[in-house]
Amino acid sequence: MPEFLTLTPPMTALELLLGELKEKSGLEWVELKDALGRITAEAIIAPHALPAFSRSAMDGYAVRASDTFGASEGLPAYLRVVGEIAMGAMATMELDRAQCALIHTGGMLPASADAVVMLEYTQGVKAGEVEILKAVAPGENVIRVGEDVESGQEVIQAGSKLRPAEIGGLAALGISRVAVMGKPRVAIIATGDEVVPLNAEALPGQVHDVNTYSLGALVEQSGGTPISYGIVPDQVEMLERTARQALEECDIVTIVAGSSASTRDFTSQVINGLGAPGVLVHGVSIRPGKPTILGVCDGKAVIGLPGNPVSALVIAGLFIAPIIEQRLGVTREQPRPSVQAKLLVNVPSQAGREDWIPVRLHHEAEGWEADPVFGKSNLIFTLARADGLVRIPQDATGLQAGEVVEVFFIN
Amino acid sequence: MPEFLTLTPPMTALELLLGELKEKSGLEWVELKDALGRITAEAIIAPHALPAFSRSAMDGYAVRASDTFGASEGLPAYLRVVGEIAMGAMATMELDRAQCALIHTGGMLPASADAVVMLEYTQGVKAGEVEILKAVAPGENVIRVGEDVESGQEVIQAGSKLRPAEIGGLAALGISRVAVMGKPRVAIIATGDEVVPLNAEALPGQVHDVNTYSLGALVEQSGGTPISYGIVPDQVEMLERTARQALEECDIVTIVAGSSASTRDFTSQVINGLGAPGVLVHGVSIRPGKPTILGVCDGKAVIGLPGNPVSALVIAGLFIAPIIEQRLGVTREQPRPSVQAKLLVNVPSQAGREDWIPVRLHHEAEGWEADPVFGKSNLIFTLARADGLVRIPQDATGLQAGEVVEVFFIN
Repeated sequence: MPEFLTLTPPMTALELLLGELKEKSGLEWVELKDALGRITAEAIIAPHALPAFSRSAMDGYAVRASDTFGASEGLPAYLRVVGEIAMGAMATMELDRAQCALIHTGGMLPASADAVVMLEYTQGVKAGEVEILKAVAPGENVIRVGEDVESGQEVIQAGSKLRPAEIGGLAALGISRVAVMGKPRVAIIATGDEVVPLNAEALPGQVHDVNTYSLGALVEQSGGTPISYGIVPDQVEMLERTARQALEECDIVTIVAGSSASTRDFTSQVINGLGAPGVLVHGVSIRPGKPTILGVCDGKAVIGLPGNPVSALVIAGLFIAPIIEQRLGVTREQPRPSVQAKLLVNVPSQAGREDWIPVRLHHEAEGWEADPVFGKSNLIFTLARADGLVRIPQDATGLQAGEVVEVFFIN
Repeated sequence: MPEFLTLTPPMTALELLLGELKEKSGLEWVELKDALGRITAEAIIAPHALPAFSRSAMDGYAVRASDTFGASEGLPAYLRVVGEIAMGAMATMELDRAQCALIHTGGMLPASADAVVMLEYTQGVKAGEVEILKAVAPGENVIRVGEDVESGQEVIQAGSKLRPAEIGGLAALGISRVAVMGKPRVAIIATGDEVVPLNAEALPGQVHDVNTYSLGALVEQSGGTPISYGIVPDQVEMLERTARQALEECDIVTIVAGSSASTRDFTSQVINGLGAPGVLVHGVSIRPGKPTILGVCDGKAVIGLPGNPVSALVIAGLFIAPIIEQRLGVTREQPRPSVQAKLLVNVPSQAGREDWIPVRLHHEAEGWEADPVFGKSNLIFTLARADGLVRIPQDATGLQAGEVVEVFFIN
């Protein structure tokens, strides 16, 4: 009996799955210094303008621009210096006609001033007087109130990733705590009678649990919190019990298949028993990762991942990461980081199946070269040796040596 | 008096700086589950082969290949089934001539078997006997001992970043703790009489401390630990004292200039007083970030960053991140993630200066478009609104609308 009657193309499968998932993470408050990489839960509205006062963009003299009109090196304007605006102080002085004040970059402009003459275009004549060698227009060398941000303006959308620039922007606005989306809890259930925990000795016939660690790291990287449910032996009742507990405690459940055919069958049976609608996709036209099972139970994604560590990691990158992102409400569409590289050898592929080929990048004078790392999908070090993955689309029968391909980074 | 007599090109400046820095971080041990993103301090040597025993790559029958030679659907070979190899168990049975054993994917091959016939190419005839419908070659459908990794092989170089794939590889080898490079401690000293801490109210003339937060986030992202030394007023003695303490306690020191000309002068004076050789570069031919100061004191980098938050962040990305990487001993050369995009408007630039222009990316049917976010370099939200930066080389006088440019991501 063929295990997979019809394979679903990867993009179709992902869209089908994401379409069934409506729930978003809850909101939590974090200190700004702990907010890097988190996703905003609400739009951030500026509580005041930035800058909040007119500031000088230069070292020089704060002036009324009209007092400098017509000034030149041959015919300077003469202004009286009525004071110096100290950094961090409120500029309280009033400038009368033909008066100016010494100001520093970032200093506050007096209310009556509307421009700054750069120090380079001035010349001291006698105490308390300065020659202006160049006219300035109103607003020149001034950062006006609200030039960066207006009061009440939406400065960061809900669903944005907080990068160093956003963190800086929030600090500028005096915002010290920020509402972010809670990290989705992602259950990882390893299965297989042959799998032993990392702290146990692997006897002949046994292998160490790889997927709990590699998938855990990928979940962490994708903005989720991995929760390990240990290694479940190949017994459907035990898997069912563990999966039910994981579904209660977590937002996303992954069941990593054991190698044997029996456990692969368990997984879809367990998913169908956990909640409606159950299994949506059983088998994806992709390599590695064909035996992938995508399900939804009571509004939560329950994913059956292949047990081969390479397949599990590639599939998790293509399916688990987007589920986490959708739950986090990430709104801003950003390209997946990639680099163009020249393929070094022919890579065959079967039409009707999307292939993801691990490649290692080499830097040559003319640019980057991509060298495929061939290996069976249970050899985890084929991925560890690779810098990225090249996608061979479903309708292609392979790639030619010398072709320029897009390499998506493995982070 | 011109502040910068000669400006150094950015690449020259960076090479000069890195050439003076020899010290590397120390080694520390972390649990595998906490190792994501860390840099290996030593080469990882495989303590045993992977797989450690010959494994079946398929569900089927473990056979001696010679017993199947010549077998076909028309003329099957008949083999006696002497048992089933349980998952996780040592395969102890001996296969005599014309004998086979049921085996599952990942199961251990008996010593006398050398190939696996896939279930699809077999047919049960009567209890204890199976028809083999296709010959297999020795080694077929078998993952041999050491096919992923040989015992004693170097599997991960020193100076490698631990990604999910490497984490999985280490788990496969049963390695639960890993020696990584200690995170460089990066001091951030903010200065400026106008700068107030985030928890204080900013009165007219005052601004909140932005750089401690934005630079702290960038340091964290680059693999370092940011250590804040608060905000130092514009007094050379206080800056000197704080910088000296920071140099003792940290591996890299950054001093973020206040806006006023006086503090910019302080910084180079303080760096020269801290230790030899002192200031290496004062002024870089780059925009934003011209007033950057690069120094080395007693083997540690001491960097004077411009006070404008956009300049500080761009310069930190170009200079602080590589210093951290070098201290971490990162060996593997990887391209900086970027995307090709069509520039939407002309961007002028001054020859002799390298420009970095913040752009926002839009996805169009034909690909990505890059829309410059113009704004003075003290407007932090110009960066927060951008997805990446476009570099205009020193010898160019600008970029044309319609040109395809490389956009480097702002993470």
